[in-house]
Amino acid sequence: MAADSNHFIGVDFGGTKILAGIFSPSLKLLKSVKLTTKSERGVEAVIDRITRAVRDVADEADLDLKQVRAIGLGAPGAVEPESGRVIYAINVGWTNVPLKKELEKRLGLPVFVENDCKASTLGVYHLELKGKPRSMVGVFLGTGVGGGLIFDGVLHAGENFAAGEVGHMILDIDGAKAGRAARGSFESLASRTAIFYRIKSAVKEGQKTILTDMLGADLEDMRSGDLRRALRRGDKLVEKVVAEAASHTGVAVANLINVLGPEVVALGGGVIEALGEEMMPIIQKRAEELVLPGTFDAVRIIASRLGDNAGISGAAVLAQARSK
Amino acid sequence: MAADSNHFIGVDFGGTKILAGIFSPSLKLLKSVKLTTKSERGVEAVIDRITRAVRDVADEADLDLKQVRAIGLGAPGAVEPESGRVIYAINVGWTNVPLKKELEKRLGLPVFVENDCKASTLGVYHLELKGKPRSMVGVFLGTGVGGGLIFDGVLHAGENFAAGEVGHMILDIDGAKAGRAARGSFESLASRTAIFYRIKSAVKEGQKTILTDMLGADLEDMRSGDLRRALRRGDKLVEKVVAEAASHTGVAVANLINVLGPEVVALGGGVIEALGEEMMPIIQKRAEELVLPGTFDAVRIIASRLGDNAGISGAAVLAQARSK
Repeated sequence: MAADSNHFIGVDFGGTKILAGIFSPSLKLLKSVKLTTKSERGVEAVIDRITRAVRDVADEADLDLKQVRAIGLGAPGAVEPESGRVIYAINVGWTNVPLKKELEKRLGLPVFVENDCKASTLGVYHLELKGKPRSMVGVFLGTGVGGGLIFDGVLHAGENFAAGEVGHMILDIDGAKAGRAARGSFESLASRTAIFYRIKSAVKEGQKTILTDMLGADLEDMRSGDLRRALRRGDKLVEKVVAEAASHTGVAVANLINVLGPEVVALGGGVIEALGEEMMPIIQKRAEELVLPGTFDAVRIIASRLGDNAGISGAAVLAQARSK
Repeated sequence: MAADSNHFIGVDFGGTKILAGIFSPSLKLLKSVKLTTKSERGVEAVIDRITRAVRDVADEADLDLKQVRAIGLGAPGAVEPESGRVIYAINVGWTNVPLKKELEKRLGLPVFVENDCKASTLGVYHLELKGKPRSMVGVFLGTGVGGGLIFDGVLHAGENFAAGEVGHMILDIDGAKAGRAARGSFESLASRTAIFYRIKSAVKEGQKTILTDMLGADLEDMRSGDLRRALRRGDKLVEKVVAEAASHTGVAVANLINVLGPEVVALGGGVIEALGEEMMPIIQKRAEELVLPGTFDAVRIIASRLGDNAGISGAAVLAQARSK
């Protein structure tokens, strides 16, 4: 029986959804399932939903939880990786939740918890780049903006377990604000929340966009994919707002290169998945303008191809590494 | 004879001055000498002046160069530490200078070269903090702004050898510009160059300051110490400009904490040496406002007490470490 316990489950849990993937012993993704988070129902309910996603994904792959060695989980906000405690997670309103302990109690399997963007960084580094770069910075643009740092092949935790919180970098003192992020922060300038907020504000001010034809005047159910479709149809407003977000992302990438000198900066998350084709050339150009002369050639800026699966992939990497 | 070769010389070479210190085998500073750089005379002339400073400081301590085991040198800009080549140094107008090779030829001793602020970071970390913190970010405010990163006790070079260039971090897109640094960069907002530029601009616009009584209307020979004296005499303009620089420094420190989560952020350089008493409380407060909630307590922000000697101290640490 124990000899069969060689699969891994990776869970990516964020403000809007819970994604769970089940992976083969060599970390090939077999099946995945998605649930909405419903954080408004409270901590216990969300933990129950994570438990359900884990059971469901094993079942989808016709596997029993007994065939799973460990579960990795990426959670939003600051996570204490040893205890698996979520210290602070603004998007779901959590403070000091013993997530590892609660999930292990419910599932009877070892659970390892890490910050979601750190997990995604692990996923891109190990499964997409095969662990080859000596150092990498992961930057993920979604509802919020987060990241992770890898030096000499190892995830950098920081003394406060909050290293890699690149979205909180201030890029524009007294600049724009969007959502709960600080004024002028990378997250307030280039997250999906920020991009949607700018478009909605412009529409309220009377600017035209085909998005209102597509979605209605209030743009209620706007998604990143809608922006991509609007861009392909030549929408000027969307083009301008997306270009601005990309330019700001280029500034953030330049800051990270000037401070850290990584071999690779890998961009990912839902915004890059949907709009990477338009954003990457702008990000690359803006970063090159701002990086210390003579030091840019050593650095590669790439868009991850893992897309939405970066988080579950990294969580599976974490599960495998920590359960050895 | 060889048994006597146990002293070290540390050199800090920047846009305005060359400082050389001779250190005992246990890295106690014995004597130091200072020369102006005179970079306008060209690369060869500056290398000759560094050579002279090295010979002079040994002589000051009644020691012979034969009693010196190695020389460490902190140079401005991007340095390739293995070859000791200065790749690019904007303040002295150097590109691709084989400084280690040239100095070894002139002095007949091993020379080790590092970026000046990385050397200062080593000095603060090893001689002031005795190597105790696990990780440290050094931030040095002088003519420019530079820094260095220490993770697990080791200086982080970066793949491009330019990690730690914190002065190039953009904090205020479309913000102010000062000197040759990029618009809205930390260096353009909080270096001595930036502070002096703001004060001179304000005076040209007709604002009042006792600095003009002290130094004449053109403020030609202004130094950081003059600002300290003006502050103590209650000068409102200087107070405002210095407070702004401190606030911007607090933003930069918060960015570094959010990205890196270090145990210690150590501030130093001429600006902090002269104005640290006024600036540090503002830096501390601003950083605390911007650091991700719940993660600030693990981090200490300190002002280095090494002052102007941080660079030569770190260069001596480098000489000792690399000549083992």
